[in-house]
Amino acid sequence: MGIEVSKKAIEEATHKLSNWGRWGGEDQIGTLNHVTPDMIVAAAKLVKQGKVFGMGIPLDRSGPQNGLFGGRWNPIHTMLATGTDSIAGVFDEHLKIRYADDALHMPVQAATHWDSLGHVFYEDKMYNGYPAKYVDSGGVHKNGIEHTRSKMVGRGVLLDIARFKGVDYLEDGYGIPNDELDACAKAEGVSIGKGDFVIIRTGQMENCLKTGVWGGYAGGDAPGVKFENCYWAQEKQIAAICSDTWGVEVRPNETTEANQPWHWVVIPAMGLTMGEIFYLKELAEDCAQDKVYEFMFTAPPLVITGGTGSPINPQAIK
Amino acid sequence: MGIEVSKKAIEEATHKLSNWGRWGGEDQIGTLNHVTPDMIVAAAKLVKQGKVFGMGIPLDRSGPQNGLFGGRWNPIHTMLATGTDSIAGVFDEHLKIRYADDALHMPVQAATHWDSLGHVFYEDKMYNGYPAKYVDSGGVHKNGIEHTRSKMVGRGVLLDIARFKGVDYLEDGYGIPNDELDACAKAEGVSIGKGDFVIIRTGQMENCLKTGVWGGYAGGDAPGVKFENCYWAQEKQIAAICSDTWGVEVRPNETTEANQPWHWVVIPAMGLTMGEIFYLKELAEDCAQDKVYEFMFTAPPLVITGGTGSPINPQAIK
Amino acid sequence: MGIEVSKKAIEEATHKLSNWGRWGGEDQIGTLNHVTPDMIVAAAKLVKQGKVFGMGIPLDRSGPQNGLFGGRWNPIHTMLATGTDSIAGVFDEHLKIRYADDALHMPVQAATHWDSLGHVFYEDKMYNGYPAKYVDSGGVHKNGIEHTRSKMVGRGVLLDIARFKGVDYLEDGYGIPNDELDACAKAEGVSIGKGDFVIIRTGQMENCLKTGVWGGYAGGDAPGVKFENCYWAQEKQIAAICSDTWGVEVRPNETTEANQPWHWVVIPAMGLTMGEIFYLKELAEDCAQDKVYEFMFTAPPLVITGGTGSPINPQAIK
Amino acid sequence: MGIEVSKKAIEEATHKLSNWGRWGGEDQIGTLNHVTPDMIVAAAKLVKQGKVFGMGIPLDRSGPQNGLFGGRWNPIHTMLATGTDSIAGVFDEHLKIRYADDALHMPVQAATHWDSLGHVFYEDKMYNGYPAKYVDSGGVHKNGIEHTRSKMVGRGVLLDIARFKGVDYLEDGYGIPNDELDACAKAEGVSIGKGDFVIIRTGQMENCLKTGVWGGYAGGDAPGVKFENCYWAQEKQIAAICSDTWGVEVRPNETTEANQPWHWVVIPAMGLTMGEIFYLKELAEDCAQDKVYEFMFTAPPLVITGGTGSPINPQAIK
Repeated sequence: MGIEVSKKAIEEATHKLSNWGRWGGEDQIGTLNHVTPDMIVAAAKLVKQGKVFGMGIPLDRSGPQNGLFGGRWNPIHTMLATGTDSIAGVFDEHLKIRYADDALHMPVQAATHWDSLGHVFYEDKMYNGYPAKYVDSGGVHKNGIEHTRSKMVGRGVLLDIARFKGVDYLEDGYGIPNDELDACAKAEGVSIGKGDFVIIRTGQMENCLKTGVWGGYAGGDAPGVKFENCYWAQEKQIAAICSDTWGVEVRPNETTEANQPWHWVVIPAMGLTMGEIFYLKELAEDCAQDKVYEFMFTAPPLVITGGTGSPINPQAIK
Repeated sequence: MGIEVSKKAIEEATHKLSNWGRWGGEDQIGTLNHVTPDMIVAAAKLVKQGKVFGMGIPLDRSGPQNGLFGGRWNPIHTMLATGTDSIAGVFDEHLKIRYADDALHMPVQAATHWDSLGHVFYEDKMYNGYPAKYVDSGGVHKNGIEHTRSKMVGRGVLLDIARFKGVDYLEDGYGIPNDELDACAKAEGVSIGKGDFVIIRTGQMENCLKTGVWGGYAGGDAPGVKFENCYWAQEKQIAAICSDTWGVEVRPNETTEANQPWHWVVIPAMGLTMGEIFYLKELAEDCAQDKVYEFMFTAPPLVITGGTGSPINPQAIK
Repeated sequence: MGIEVSKKAIEEATHKLSNWGRWGGEDQIGTLNHVTPDMIVAAAKLVKQGKVFGMGIPLDRSGPQNGLFGGRWNPIHTMLATGTDSIAGVFDEHLKIRYADDALHMPVQAATHWDSLGHVFYEDKMYNGYPAKYVDSGGVHKNGIEHTRSKMVGRGVLLDIARFKGVDYLEDGYGIPNDELDACAKAEGVSIGKGDFVIIRTGQMENCLKTGVWGGYAGGDAPGVKFENCYWAQEKQIAAICSDTWGVEVRPNETTEANQPWHWVVIPAMGLTMGEIFYLKELAEDCAQDKVYEFMFTAPPLVITGGTGSPINPQAIK
Repeated sequence: MGIEVSKKAIEEATHKLSNWGRWGGEDQIGTLNHVTPDMIVAAAKLVKQGKVFGMGIPLDRSGPQNGLFGGRWNPIHTMLATGTDSIAGVFDEHLKIRYADDALHMPVQAATHWDSLGHVFYEDKMYNGYPAKYVDSGGVHKNGIEHTRSKMVGRGVLLDIARFKGVDYLEDGYGIPNDELDACAKAEGVSIGKGDFVIIRTGQMENCLKTGVWGGYAGGDAPGVKFENCYWAQEKQIAAICSDTWGVEVRPNETTEANQPWHWVVIPAMGLTMGEIFYLKELAEDCAQDKVYEFMFTAPPLVITGGTGSPINPQAIK
């Protein structure tokens, strides 16, 4: 499309692509409304081999957070009771059961996760026109992730752009144009339709895991969709877009006027659900082998009241 | 069966029901091995209406934890960036995006969750013979929840015991005998088979939510399966057992010699996966209406490295 | 003084008692400026017996937080390494030291603590005229507790109002008038002077500890100073005011127009440092016995960058 | 002294230097017992100028933790209420006070801190013969830091070894021999006596701060006292030893048979209190200028029930 990205382009897209009111003034889930019951039934029919691919990365201190963005940290896992306690007899007298227990402290977007529609604002508003001030220290009072608790089921499609282009991974800064998404889908023999959960593979994460260096992942440079993708996503009426990068869109940004300009539009104007930091290696290898790039997809969020998102372990079921 | 529950009965069941080595000396997922690819394909065929029921309770300070068990607390949700920050212009100059972000600190078993096979020990061992000392302050080094990341998909069956018995909820201390599970299944027109994810509804949670009083939930008295259930679960070769209570089995315990005697057997000896604190109201009402008590079930755990379990939002898809 | 407390009274006091600019436009510590080096030397001379009284309450799950105010919780203490790990040999091979380690997660004001001058705002401003928006999700960027790291040393004076009035504890809702503070000081044989750290004992905490019921402590009703105290504190030029209650001032509030009206004035207008939830039993008993109500006082805050306060363990040294 | 450090040397020192039972079988504070009331009175007399030096480093994400030791992390500070919330009017209607609040999550030994006597074990025991198993996931049940709540007051002495040797900082791996401590004290005109809080400056931290690189600090190499120091500390009958490094003793270790061999002896056998990660720049510059290396010292720990230590902000008062 050749859009010159700028605040003006953001403003224009915001107006052209707005879904405010499309699903009623009370709506809090945006493009997830595209998914209808018949699509879920159809998605289940894609399960033909009984294979399941978990796409969540491990939640531990070896994760991608390095302080580059928002003060996020890698998951902190602490034990509340242990096997070593148990064999020392700590629980025998009073509790009378030998057990282990633990706790987790993490930013909800530190690893594989959904963004909720309360995650990004445009000026003083968020999706569906709710005031941004409804997101305060008490949480996300509108558009929180809890509203999607039964909504993350449907048809998934993998667009393996790296493989399509014959590389192990796309370079940081490579912006994927819309027509490349279409060409990739065509090459894979799939079409992107209404209500789909689209998963884009850049190979960036696999390269980080292979080299053992997260580097600018998460928070820095990355391959990803170009700003123009907002038009593509709206036209296709997809339910959600996901990728193996920390922010789906290309970095460095296509403009200096805004950070993550695609985010400025797709979350607050369109209400597009976004999945990030997906681990795709095994799924992608399987798709390359059996040439089947569509599957049943389910990625239930934790029901975090007022969450800007949720850590998840998405499942592709073929 | 009429078992007199005691340490001796636990020991006997431990020996009779042991699955150690059944799936190899390296196995870490136990009865989840009962699920085969064809069962997953068959489970997907149960999706006929496109209805989805999330079974996770909200993760917030209103949860069931009250300090009765293990020093667990209700989820603590804190914001790292807010809409109020955004409209105050905090991010405009340097970050150039208006956004919100947040973090969660919770015991992994504080709300709706899976137990991993590293959660309970028998003497100095855990499932498959691994030493209990492999669970230390660094985490669960064998039998951690991360090994189940792609394993929580299959056929789900709801055994709505409360409705079967014509009550809103079973009383605390009511022990569900095995033949009642069978009678309930028969009345519902379903049979429990190998690899099933069995979900037992007692109504206890709904009563707590209705009255606004969690009381002994979680950590105290509850209705639940009797100790003899371990034999039933083994014979049926189910993949997992879940309920709307905090610990599946009846409390007060059927013996004073051990706390949660059924746990002593099913986790360390059998390697049975257990799901607790499931929210079942909507699913149960739907099943009562359409008389369909089986469905596709998926409840992916977070990939918590070395976790004794994981918070989840299980999905029943009909 | 007989002030009728209202928003108007707050506004009036705000103007009359403002210390903005008094110690320069860059000041961030307010009334702590009253303490001069000679006062510290003089305070040290009060150490005559070598007795030390710690005034911090235990940081654990048995604390006073009950969710009444601001979503605060009692301190969560988790272990990162244990003696049970050690004796199980967990560290012997690689780490080669047997040890224990731990972590703490708590609201900084959950137990005995200082408030910083960034804790309360009047309209859109905080102490010394800094905009309230300088306190965002990234922390307290002006008036944070870190600026007081070397400032919490001086002369302490205990005003044991409960004992002065001959009761074990003052009733909730009892407002201590200024002249009672003066009468108590007189009876104790001390005078309140410039730069003093004044500690007021109501007995409320001791009664909670005795009965084992925290009840409205913290967040609910309490005895405490009347609104008029802001004039007293300003006139006396004290460095700080502390008490054994969760909020120093009387509750229920003396007006329905504002919550904690005294706070509205003393923190943002005066820049008065405030200490709360002080444990005073042992100190008070000692003072009653030796009739010495003045002592060297030191209560160093943790250097929490951008903190609204800090947990502390204040020390009275006689 | 020329000790060849080994497990055998550790064992020998353990027996020679044991203070078990010295202060009774119930003692939990070890060498802090050396401090008597008259020493506190004498220490207060050292306050002659009214100068206060806080020695705590900032608690924030810029701290020294880098994952090298024990999975420790830098302090995580999150806001529970903000000025931006306040000016957005979030609290006006119901709470009726504009305020900010926050929480802190940190390992207790992540920054400037005390070690408690429950921090290190020798074989299956800790200080005073308590079994190491008394330190489990529930906390440190003997020798916890809470027992020192009123014990951290006395005479402080700075041994500025770096300045004494004419360097900005000692090199990593430099082991400070006992006679150098004595020579430094002599050059400074002070003597080390019973009940003293001895503070050793290596300059390592200042170099890290100056270069902006924490590197092996904390968890890696460092200058520090030699193993032989355990004999010195015992003979001098000091109350505590502190330094500007993360572990007081020299690293790399003087032996490959044990990690931190000095720790093996001084904590479990002697019951020596240890302070680490002290910020000494300002204090040291002042001492160099006025040639006064002794002062009143107070460093109250937080009263963390069952803590292996506590974050602190130590105070030198001259």
